[in-house]
Amino acid sequence: MARFFMVGTNLFGSPTAIIRGRDAEHIHVLRIRPGEDVVICDTEGSDYKCRLVRSDKEEAELEVLEVVPCKGEPSVAVTVLCGLPKGDRVDYIIQKSVEAGAHDIVFFLSSRCVARPSDPYKKLERWNRISEEAAKQSGRGIIPQVGWAGEFAEMLDIAVKKELGLFMYETGEREALNSVLEENKTAKTAAIITGPEGGFAEFEAKLARICGLHVCSMGERILRCETAPIVALTAAMYATGNLA
Amino acid sequence: MARFFMVGTNLFGSPTAIIRGRDAEHIHVLRIRPGEDVVICDTEGSDYKCRLVRSDKEEAELEVLEVVPCKGEPSVAVTVLCGLPKGDRVDYIIQKSVEAGAHDIVFFLSSRCVARPSDPYKKLERWNRISEEAAKQSGRGIIPQVGWAGEFAEMLDIAVKKELGLFMYETGEREALNSVLEENKTAKTAAIITGPEGGFAEFEAKLARICGLHVCSMGERILRCETAPIVALTAAMYATGNLA
Repeated sequence: MARFFMVGTNLFGSPTAIIRGRDAEHIHVLRIRPGEDVVICDTEGSDYKCRLVRSDKEEAELEVLEVVPCKGEPSVAVTVLCGLPKGDRVDYIIQKSVEAGAHDIVFFLSSRCVARPSDPYKKLERWNRISEEAAKQSGRGIIPQVGWAGEFAEMLDIAVKKELGLFMYETGEREALNSVLEENKTAKTAAIITGPEGGFAEFEAKLARICGLHVCSMGERILRCETAPIVALTAAMYATGNLA
Repeated sequence: MARFFMVGTNLFGSPTAIIRGRDAEHIHVLRIRPGEDVVICDTEGSDYKCRLVRSDKEEAELEVLEVVPCKGEPSVAVTVLCGLPKGDRVDYIIQKSVEAGAHDIVFFLSSRCVARPSDPYKKLERWNRISEEAAKQSGRGIIPQVGWAGEFAEMLDIAVKKELGLFMYETGEREALNSVLEENKTAKTAAIITGPEGGFAEFEAKLARICGLHVCSMGERILRCETAPIVALTAAMYATGNLA
């Protein structure tokens, strides 16, 4: 069933929903007919099952049939924090993290980042559009926000505020990701931190440890920078019972 | 450390290894100097730690220092079976499955496949090259083979021979993937089956069940056809202790 997020609708407490703008156009393009059902998502985890009453390019009117909690939302809010990679790896990380259940996605700069955009905030609009598309397609109940943290220290500041902070690192002394997850199954918020193409420098791993993050290993296979966040996120979803 | 697979080497029982052809050229291009170390992998799970003695474009001579089991190999051999998707999604599935620890990857046709190549066997060479590159890069001890199963029934025939067969399906009665994995942690061989863009038809899920495969759910989020195998494979690696 087609899903829409509540952008410009007036759904609260009303038996009728009016959709305007891009989504109204989309309903029109998809040739959804009066009498057919769609889901409108309030981006806060509730699904409004609706039946189309009428639509044209500018506006769609829908009857609200039922309001149910969105089943696509995991019980743990995982923030995926990635050292900014090059090119379309960013797009890929956003799309796959949203599918795999991320609560939000934040990029940051670390010492080995090759990509150093002059104005990263400019990119946020496009990045958030990728997230919205992926959220629609995968049946999410929220649109995971894509953000920019700036420097490594600012990323640490975000991560330490979560119940569980997981810093993925490729060498040296580390905890096994699965042990850490098994011991923290009930966490409601978590941060997963992965590096750019060249990984993290040793001093960055040290800083993460000092800040109380778990410096973790995901086994002996070396994952690409765009693969690591998806694998770590999937492990977190599995451990917290959100892959069932 | 640079890794090479044993193609055209004469490593068995010898204190000296001679590499010729593509890999010799690669050592040359990487400007690896005499005295520097590389790893040669016998593609059967053993790593030969070697020191370069001399090299030119055609040939490299190495001293074998030590033979150790490759740490990158998981304890479970998972065969990833995918309904053939369109375009570069195939490349993506191969690359990421190899990184995530697949033992081999097999494509097949199911009722909703849009891509219907006239000669799929022709594509195998390129697909296997993608696997080899990913295996080198991620530190695998084998080069996961990419194969072509043909029709759905032939895929079933491969899957039923594994200790554990997991058929990913999006609707209807299913077992939770995590429960099935928890109950089969000690499996040494497993098959993970995922569909093409449009998923599987109901009769296909029924056939899978009749054949004794576990028809599994991965939660309420809808995963793209190129994402599903990676998520399911990661779950299997996590459950069998291969993500630590």
